[in-house]
Amino acid sequence: MNLSDAMAELFYGGQSRLVRAFEDYDGEASFRREPWQRAGLGGGRVCTLEGGRVFERAGVNVSAVSGAQVPPSVGAQLPETAGKPFRATGISMVLHPLNPYAPSFHANFRFFETGDAWWFGGGLDLTPMYGFDDDAVHFHRTLRDWCDRHPGTADHEKWKSACDSYFTIEHRGEMRGIGGVFFDHLTATGPDGFAAHRALVADGLDTILAAYRPILDRRTELPYGEAERRWQLIRRGRYAEFNLVYDRGTMFGLQTKGNIEAILISMPPMASWAYDVRPEPRSPEADLSRFLQPRDWAGARAPQVKELSR
Amino acid sequence: MNLSDAMAELFYGGQSRLVRAFEDYDGEASFRREPWQRAGLGGGRVCTLEGGRVFERAGVNVSAVSGAQVPPSVGAQLPETAGKPFRATGISMVLHPLNPYAPSFHANFRFFETGDAWWFGGGLDLTPMYGFDDDAVHFHRTLRDWCDRHPGTADHEKWKSACDSYFTIEHRGEMRGIGGVFFDHLTATGPDGFAAHRALVADGLDTILAAYRPILDRRTELPYGEAERRWQLIRRGRYAEFNLVYDRGTMFGLQTKGNIEAILISMPPMASWAYDVRPEPRSPEADLSRFLQPRDWAGARAPQVKELSR
Repeated sequence: MNLSDAMAELFYGGQSRLVRAFEDYDGEASFRREPWQRAGLGGGRVCTLEGGRVFERAGVNVSAVSGAQVPPSVGAQLPETAGKPFRATGISMVLHPLNPYAPSFHANFRFFETGDAWWFGGGLDLTPMYGFDDDAVHFHRTLRDWCDRHPGTADHEKWKSACDSYFTIEHRGEMRGIGGVFFDHLTATGPDGFAAHRALVADGLDTILAAYRPILDRRTELPYGEAERRWQLIRRGRYAEFNLVYDRGTMFGLQTKGNIEAILISMPPMASWAYDVRPEPRSPEADLSRFLQPRDWAGARAPQVKELSR
Repeated sequence: MNLSDAMAELFYGGQSRLVRAFEDYDGEASFRREPWQRAGLGGGRVCTLEGGRVFERAGVNVSAVSGAQVPPSVGAQLPETAGKPFRATGISMVLHPLNPYAPSFHANFRFFETGDAWWFGGGLDLTPMYGFDDDAVHFHRTLRDWCDRHPGTADHEKWKSACDSYFTIEHRGEMRGIGGVFFDHLTATGPDGFAAHRALVADGLDTILAAYRPILDRRTELPYGEAERRWQLIRRGRYAEFNLVYDRGTMFGLQTKGNIEAILISMPPMASWAYDVRPEPRSPEADLSRFLQPRDWAGARAPQVKELSR
């Protein structure tokens, strides 16, 4: 089996397990599973859940495409690949919970192969609408521990900082959420190099539930009202701004007219915009701003388990 | 009084009249009027209304800014202006009605002056969530009549086609709405040339209510339910996609970190995304698609007054 096939197998397997796990967690709604194929391009499987008890919208996509020539955007960055045939395989997921206290979650892993060259990219990040110190600490420590299990392959410090900078909404001067990790063009030579990176990514897939589920456990049953829902929708408007204005994957997908519905599965189920929203000073809404700037959460001296007073 | 001052006076006057007219029309909510000034840039007045009886969100902005050097985007297009001081004055408005049968409306007029050179740009366009032939015919005929009152200055055919092409959501293969008119870099020489163009724009401001109000009259009281609201929010998601992915004014504003809240006043108050929404064949929702492709509405043989059956 060649490398891209091996990664596709890993991603499809991960998708099946994760979709089942999220479905179980939701307890009410189930994922619609749609395989797709396009002649001369490849195919994939889009899994979407809408209107659940826990998840207002969730999508877990796998795609495995190939082409006769690397896309211009890749060729421009890596001239030695220009004009060569390629394969691109990836999994990506976005979960938008219904409860405003439960954060949205995004992760993706991708594998690109052209000639003898290959590389991995990916990342995981969290977007709370209300900030909780213990959630941020748990999330970042879980990601750091994952990286620490792969010395020589993963670089947590670098990836954390790349994530902070990638998920920034420039025009708002704030991050989309609390970040996580983000890496790209990760490669090595020889079969051992591939095996080590495949193991990193396989472990990354297994880290998703470890990073996110304990946070959902703490947040999805918290009572909330109209005001919290309104704030959630405003924050989701920022999420939409990031995806449509800055996200490279979304822009690339829209420009190349890929599977639009699969690309935009990352969009929130509902979002709102209002003029010059300014939360009350010292409110939980105002407190969110301190979460939207780079901060060393994994290294925070102690998990601050204090809950924000409601 | 110089040209930019004359235009600013016209735009501020138009803003006051329009804001009052929309407020009267709404009958419940009123506009928040916020003048702003930024040292070394200029100022403006943002007028916003939210949560009205007729309008869920409305914004009417005037800005009058100046700079020591024309922005790079202008200098690149018109090399003779590069590096020169400039003044830019404009009015823009977006109205998002609450009733799903009432279309969203957008208009803007702008005046740019650098050295001895000046030009106008602007346009008006309509975005229905449900298509009504008579609304489309009325809207386009009103705009054509406005252009016809300014022979030698306006070019309806060209501007209508520019609007169809500008307000296209490329990745969806559809227009944002039914178009209208769109023009840019409109100039002339001598004081008569300016006077004729100023008159065109002044008349354009007066055309806004003539074009939009009769449509609101027919739609804002129509009864609707959850299904129509859901469809409206999905269509507003497309509106948000256009604004954030393609609209030049929005992109320019975000990149230059202008008055973000004023720039994003065009965003819908509430929007939603769902996976692969496909209206029932022959439903009013499905019928919208024939409105989202270029069509000669003003020249349509007769105003088709048939209402879609609900």
